[in-house]
Amino acid sequence: MDAPAKIPTMQSYLSASAKFASDADTPRDFLARCLTALDAWEPKIGAFVNLNIEGARAAAERATERWRAGRPLSAIDGMPIGIKDVIETVDMPTEMGSPLFAGWQSMKDAASVAALREAGAVILGKTVTTEFAATEPRGTRNPWDLNRTPGGSSSGSAAAVAAGIVSAALGTQVLGSVLRPASFCGCFGFKPTVNALNREGSHDYQSQSCTGVEAATLDEAWQVAYEIALRVGGDAGHPGLSGPDRAPAAKAPRRLAFLKTASWPEAAAGAKQRMDEALSRFEIAGAEIRTANNDRKVAAIEEAIRDARALSTRINNWEMRWFLKTCAERDHSKLSASVLERLREGEAMTQSDYCNALIERARVRAVHAELADSCDACVLLSAPGPAPLGLQSTGNPGFNVPASLLGAPAISLPVFEIEAMPVGLQVMGFAGNDAAAFATAAWALARCQDPPGKAAADG
Amino acid sequence: MDAPAKIPTMQSYLSASAKFASDADTPRDFLARCLTALDAWEPKIGAFVNLNIEGARAAAERATERWRAGRPLSAIDGMPIGIKDVIETVDMPTEMGSPLFAGWQSMKDAASVAALREAGAVILGKTVTTEFAATEPRGTRNPWDLNRTPGGSSSGSAAAVAAGIVSAALGTQVLGSVLRPASFCGCFGFKPTVNALNREGSHDYQSQSCTGVEAATLDEAWQVAYEIALRVGGDAGHPGLSGPDRAPAAKAPRRLAFLKTASWPEAAAGAKQRMDEALSRFEIAGAEIRTANNDRKVAAIEEAIRDARALSTRINNWEMRWFLKTCAERDHSKLSASVLERLREGEAMTQSDYCNALIERARVRAVHAELADSCDACVLLSAPGPAPLGLQSTGNPGFNVPASLLGAPAISLPVFEIEAMPVGLQVMGFAGNDAAAFATAAWALARCQDPPGKAAADG
Repeated sequence: MDAPAKIPTMQSYLSASAKFASDADTPRDFLARCLTALDAWEPKIGAFVNLNIEGARAAAERATERWRAGRPLSAIDGMPIGIKDVIETVDMPTEMGSPLFAGWQSMKDAASVAALREAGAVILGKTVTTEFAATEPRGTRNPWDLNRTPGGSSSGSAAAVAAGIVSAALGTQVLGSVLRPASFCGCFGFKPTVNALNREGSHDYQSQSCTGVEAATLDEAWQVAYEIALRVGGDAGHPGLSGPDRAPAAKAPRRLAFLKTASWPEAAAGAKQRMDEALSRFEIAGAEIRTANNDRKVAAIEEAIRDARALSTRINNWEMRWFLKTCAERDHSKLSASVLERLREGEAMTQSDYCNALIERARVRAVHAELADSCDACVLLSAPGPAPLGLQSTGNPGFNVPASLLGAPAISLPVFEIEAMPVGLQVMGFAGNDAAAFATAAWALARCQDPPGKAAADG
Repeated sequence: MDAPAKIPTMQSYLSASAKFASDADTPRDFLARCLTALDAWEPKIGAFVNLNIEGARAAAERATERWRAGRPLSAIDGMPIGIKDVIETVDMPTEMGSPLFAGWQSMKDAASVAALREAGAVILGKTVTTEFAATEPRGTRNPWDLNRTPGGSSSGSAAAVAAGIVSAALGTQVLGSVLRPASFCGCFGFKPTVNALNREGSHDYQSQSCTGVEAATLDEAWQVAYEIALRVGGDAGHPGLSGPDRAPAAKAPRRLAFLKTASWPEAAAGAKQRMDEALSRFEIAGAEIRTANNDRKVAAIEEAIRDARALSTRINNWEMRWFLKTCAERDHSKLSASVLERLREGEAMTQSDYCNALIERARVRAVHAELADSCDACVLLSAPGPAPLGLQSTGNPGFNVPASLLGAPAISLPVFEIEAMPVGLQVMGFAGNDAAAFATAAWALARCQDPPGKAAADG
């Protein structure tokens, strides 16, 4: 298949909305530009499984009236948003990337979707997810190269944002499903603190899973998450994301921990080089870089997350066991081999195995919390390199699993380019302090965008 | 309406199962007796909203074969069980007591139901719930007196167990919805430690809500909960109910805290008198009774739970806000006035109000945890008296809210009788130690069943 005619271009709603009061631009016109991008890109990339264009047009009309009247419901009033198809929507089916749920209707909005509608957002459609937000891909292509995966499991969300069809899209991450597609598709990805956004009505049943945001800018990644938490909080019993009502301003960190993680040997030479260059920029701009070689606490967390993927997988398999079993009993021929293998692994576990895994996860999280004394945030690659060729795998989540296991907020910044493909830089903060992670990410983004020599001059 | 011809009689499956190996009795025959009770009682009490009799018969046949072969899947293999209609079942609709979900199909089993089927249980039907497990009753009648409420919100579950239609039924409790109907209908009720039984696929969205069991005996209340936790654990991220593979044996407590709670002034004179008599029996049998008058820590917890209902309601209203809103937007004319009022109260709250309520709940729970140093358990009434006349209210949950707010395990024992109606004695343990609460409850049950004078002689 040929590459698309032009390179994908994201569309920032927050940048456009300054003109809505004057009528120089409107949510209606913004949606029209998104629908143009949909027409151009969707046939090539297959980011959506269901669309409600009529509903989106009507919502954009209402938002247009509110902005004209000077009474928008929120900063995202009228923003076109995609919803990963494991999250329920009252107006469209929720199919979970599985033929077992083809056409299935929840008859309600998930908490996050209810909050977005209340904030005035325009819900354009349901984005393609891998089967049950696990590994089996469902055909979405990377808008930067149609022969490559967009990553997963929030495949359609990242691809749709990267192609400018929506300004933001909800995803979920239990291993690497928000950060990795952001890295591969070149959009911003925000995986909040675990439990920070209400997951009721989202069919991800695992304790370290988290609703996240793929977005055209860092600011809208924050804004979308903020508007959800303001209206529906976090998971029941948790306080939910907290922070300012606009994206936190850039703040220079005193010290950054550079995490290689166990995946570093798998990283492409180009990715390692870009990462080293970024670290140099951060140092020139005044941040001290700590590593496992010069900081005992960094060494401790590197050691603690060495088996992050295996430990996460054990926890996830037990937590998915009941769901995969009820699905398998309906019709196991409609489940992929990889999901059936997960079921087998879950069935081989006992409640006691699971409890031991939870205890180990709590220990690893405590090691990470210790690091907050010496470092403002961790920086690491978002992926071992650009999106791999082929659609049969959504790529390696190795660099994303630490944030999932740790329950820590993490942001992927689309600042690297390798082989004319995007690769993300990841800023990982500390659980419960998503706003601080954003402030560091905003600073890191600016340093990576500085013209060569600028940072040194400033430093 | 006239009272039923004969008094309701519960059917214990665990008592019957001793004969299954010899074929003197079988799960098939047990189910036949349950279906006879269904025919006799269901037209009068209306405990079920959907039944799957054919599926139940087939499941009982399979269980009969397994017992005959000496290979039952568990102690509850073949046990007829009812499922509160907020909990999903793959073979029947989940209607949540709301016309908005009439005929709605989840296309899967909830985690708890998947576990029960895996253990061989026979899922007979979906039991009537009040609207969204909140306050609006849906017509079920009390088998002890058809002119009285069975309590709620697990109305059908308690009524069905009391009438001998099933040996156990799942319920949920966020204020008093397991313990109160158990008290009113004269069955055993078990509200576990919060998060101790996996709630995925159950449409109760509140952090202090909990899957519980109404049962014919104390042993089956334990066994049903145990078999669920063994297979699907607790809520994701929680270790889940732990304890022995058969109901814990009776163990004499050293000290019991008698809680009057803020509801004591509302209790019927007869209920107060029965409670005093029970306390005398416990004292004669060797347990020291501590009260707010002679124990500083009991006084502290009485004070801490004084506003338990108001605090719980604030937390619940915020947590239900998104759900009631998405329902109201579908068709608010299909919601009761009481549910619409809850929505208004939830909408008047902010995320910050909610966080403050969570902080207060954590403080109250810490006060309760302190009590474990001086007392083995708390004892209190399960309800202020027998089920009130009329079907327009499910009664006062005042005595049940403390266990919900505290996240503590609590068991209602059907040991009192007032006006020829059952009233429960409640044993409340400490969060995470459900087995110890059962051991105390088994002891308390035996003391209440001792013939007069026996305890004194033993003492």
